[in-house]
Amino acid sequence: MEIAQKAHLAATVLKTVSNDDRTATLKMVHDALREAKDEVIAANVKDLDAAKSANLSPSLIKRLDLSTGDKYDSMLQGILDVASLDDPVGKVTLARKLDDNLELYRLTCPVGVLLVIFEARPEVIANITALAIKSGNAAILKGGKESLHSFTAIAKAVTKALEKSKVPPGAIQLIATRDEVSSLLSQDQYIDLVIPRGSNELVKHIKDNTKIPVMGHADGICAIYVDQDANAKMAADIVVDAKTNYPAGCNSVETLLINEKVISDKWPTVASALVDANVEIRATPELIEALPADLKSHCKTATEEDFKTEFLAHIIAAKSVPTVEDAMAHINSHGSSHTDCIITDNETTAGKFLKGIDSAGVYWNASTRFADGFRYGFGTEVGVSTNKIHARGPVGLEGLVNYQYILKGNGQIAASYLGAGGDKPFKHEDLPLEN
Amino acid sequence: MEIAQKAHLAATVLKTVSNDDRTATLKMVHDALREAKDEVIAANVKDLDAAKSANLSPSLIKRLDLSTGDKYDSMLQGILDVASLDDPVGKVTLARKLDDNLELYRLTCPVGVLLVIFEARPEVIANITALAIKSGNAAILKGGKESLHSFTAIAKAVTKALEKSKVPPGAIQLIATRDEVSSLLSQDQYIDLVIPRGSNELVKHIKDNTKIPVMGHADGICAIYVDQDANAKMAADIVVDAKTNYPAGCNSVETLLINEKVISDKWPTVASALVDANVEIRATPELIEALPADLKSHCKTATEEDFKTEFLAHIIAAKSVPTVEDAMAHINSHGSSHTDCIITDNETTAGKFLKGIDSAGVYWNASTRFADGFRYGFGTEVGVSTNKIHARGPVGLEGLVNYQYILKGNGQIAASYLGAGGDKPFKHEDLPLEN
Repeated sequence: MEIAQKAHLAATVLKTVSNDDRTATLKMVHDALREAKDEVIAANVKDLDAAKSANLSPSLIKRLDLSTGDKYDSMLQGILDVASLDDPVGKVTLARKLDDNLELYRLTCPVGVLLVIFEARPEVIANITALAIKSGNAAILKGGKESLHSFTAIAKAVTKALEKSKVPPGAIQLIATRDEVSSLLSQDQYIDLVIPRGSNELVKHIKDNTKIPVMGHADGICAIYVDQDANAKMAADIVVDAKTNYPAGCNSVETLLINEKVISDKWPTVASALVDANVEIRATPELIEALPADLKSHCKTATEEDFKTEFLAHIIAAKSVPTVEDAMAHINSHGSSHTDCIITDNETTAGKFLKGIDSAGVYWNASTRFADGFRYGFGTEVGVSTNKIHARGPVGLEGLVNYQYILKGNGQIAASYLGAGGDKPFKHEDLPLEN
Repeated sequence: MEIAQKAHLAATVLKTVSNDDRTATLKMVHDALREAKDEVIAANVKDLDAAKSANLSPSLIKRLDLSTGDKYDSMLQGILDVASLDDPVGKVTLARKLDDNLELYRLTCPVGVLLVIFEARPEVIANITALAIKSGNAAILKGGKESLHSFTAIAKAVTKALEKSKVPPGAIQLIATRDEVSSLLSQDQYIDLVIPRGSNELVKHIKDNTKIPVMGHADGICAIYVDQDANAKMAADIVVDAKTNYPAGCNSVETLLINEKVISDKWPTVASALVDANVEIRATPELIEALPADLKSHCKTATEEDFKTEFLAHIIAAKSVPTVEDAMAHINSHGSSHTDCIITDNETTAGKFLKGIDSAGVYWNASTRFADGFRYGFGTEVGVSTNKIHARGPVGLEGLVNYQYILKGNGQIAASYLGAGGDKPFKHEDLPLEN
């Protein structure tokens, strides 16, 4: 049977497996990967050798390397962490008596089949396997060619563990061949959600080549607006943190908007802090003009393109705006709906911004770097979504579930009721939610 | 400015308009349409004349006709009904203290820009306008050519009412030209959700031609499984209701699965009721064989294609299955994830079915015809979704909202906290939800 169809059928079985059995399965996966550590690391060395021979970038080689620091043990612990989370499945979110002995329930349920495509981080396999099983979703995992040996060794251990578990065969399928992806991306009748884990290019490529919903983000063009009523020191601290704490992160700031009334007093404080933190400033002329000579030399004139660019580096684009409304208009037209921030001591201005920005995260006086599942207290993070429907922002396990309606009757037919030919009214009484 | 971009910008303004102002706007739209009734009906007569000259089907002409019964007044009342619903926007669904003075809130918010494409029912314009404004979404409404005059007259009244309201220009755009659609379907940077209201062909065409999420359903292939422990009379009543109450409805039953142990006793009761209700039975040979001669003559032998067909007529496809598991496997592989039902007096068997079926609605001893927003008590229905993410089943106003995270701090930076270079732990204390 084809991979996707097999996953679809397995999903309908996995959906019925209890939380206890799903949790026990995760422990078995954990133990199997612990036992296979030497084997996996040996396979990983082969990938590393190949990557070095192929002159791949040092950052890619670092991501590929499973033996640095406590990466392997963290991966193992991550499985147990997911296992210990609350069961996301079967939560009753609505209970309503439509009529006597006719009761409607809305219950959380798995989405179905996930297709997860990732690049160089082999430990993602363990993480996604844990998330999928915990949430009752079948998953097809497709690794990149750079991690082929590591992937195969991990897959072997995971598959062996699953064989002894209550999770049906086909629920977790690990595929390593490259030519499968385009075929999988076309099977929207069997695959319900695609989760890309990798570069912006990977995400864009996938979004452009499938009708299946894609959960993730391509660009993360976060902006910070420094209002006329901002505390300049706070603005400098937040902007530097948001830019330099982890520039490769999607929640790093890329665009800085300065209220034009504070170009001469607050902007130099922020600019000076950025220069001290080795950040290149690409600013509009009026902002460069306002700086003292020693700061001016660290600035370049911004192009329009700079305000649509995710630099992922020590570079920031800056421009001035007349009002908070202009800042909002800039963000709503140039941003990527990820996370945007206002720095101000004025509650009214902040209120306007918090209401008017059309992004997954809207912040007031806090670094955009807080946009993260662990920082939000979700226990885990499936990814960050800039989609406008389903899950938004940092996504925990709840992004892998949806709901279905269960109706329990004792023979009722629609024709007895008002609106469908009969005269019985509906009761529509909400019942207590018992979870 | 282009239609979609204009809608996107209007959406960010509409998002900030209060519920009182949105509700007042709906009353203005209601009044304008009440006053324009003669004008709209006159325009509608032109559409009806054109439809008759073009020999369009009687059912299409009926859908087009705004003067039948109380259709116009129902349309007007529908606007007031939507106006009176609870505000779906700004509900706090999570409140969490990440640290002192660093508070995270998750609030419901509009999705953004809706593109609604519909065919012959001109009253849908008023309904969708009301739903969009109430939920704070901008909407682009595109009517079919059959209802061009009615559409234009309604659009004129709606537009005039909106001009005096707090809803920004561009928030509701009514377009009548045909060539715009394919261009709009490609503008996923501005349009967040497409809602088709019309035939399966329309929905399929749209799904095949856009990357924007589409909320709706193409096929509604609902199944009823009559278990060995079913009450035969109940089974007959429910199957007849589900098939004949409104055969054109997407929640009508198309497939009947009979447990093979009750072919000789319960199946003839169900078949007889169907024949009495003028339903053509397309059954597998063993089911036809089990019937008395007078019923046999009303049956045809089913083809495999019949089990993938939405008949939307007095026709039902029937086959026998050995067990409830086989019924579930059939439904999960042939169905359309809409609404499926088991008829049984056995709670254990029902429990298996309710857990294992992968559909928006799973019913026990009740007609599939209950799958409807009004019957569920939602006050209104945006449509029925067979999608696996975001809204499923009958969708009320909550299908037009999503959520965003608001973080309020007083200068916190990520680098102070554990995991990003600092040593402060997060508090992650849930706060009471105040709505």
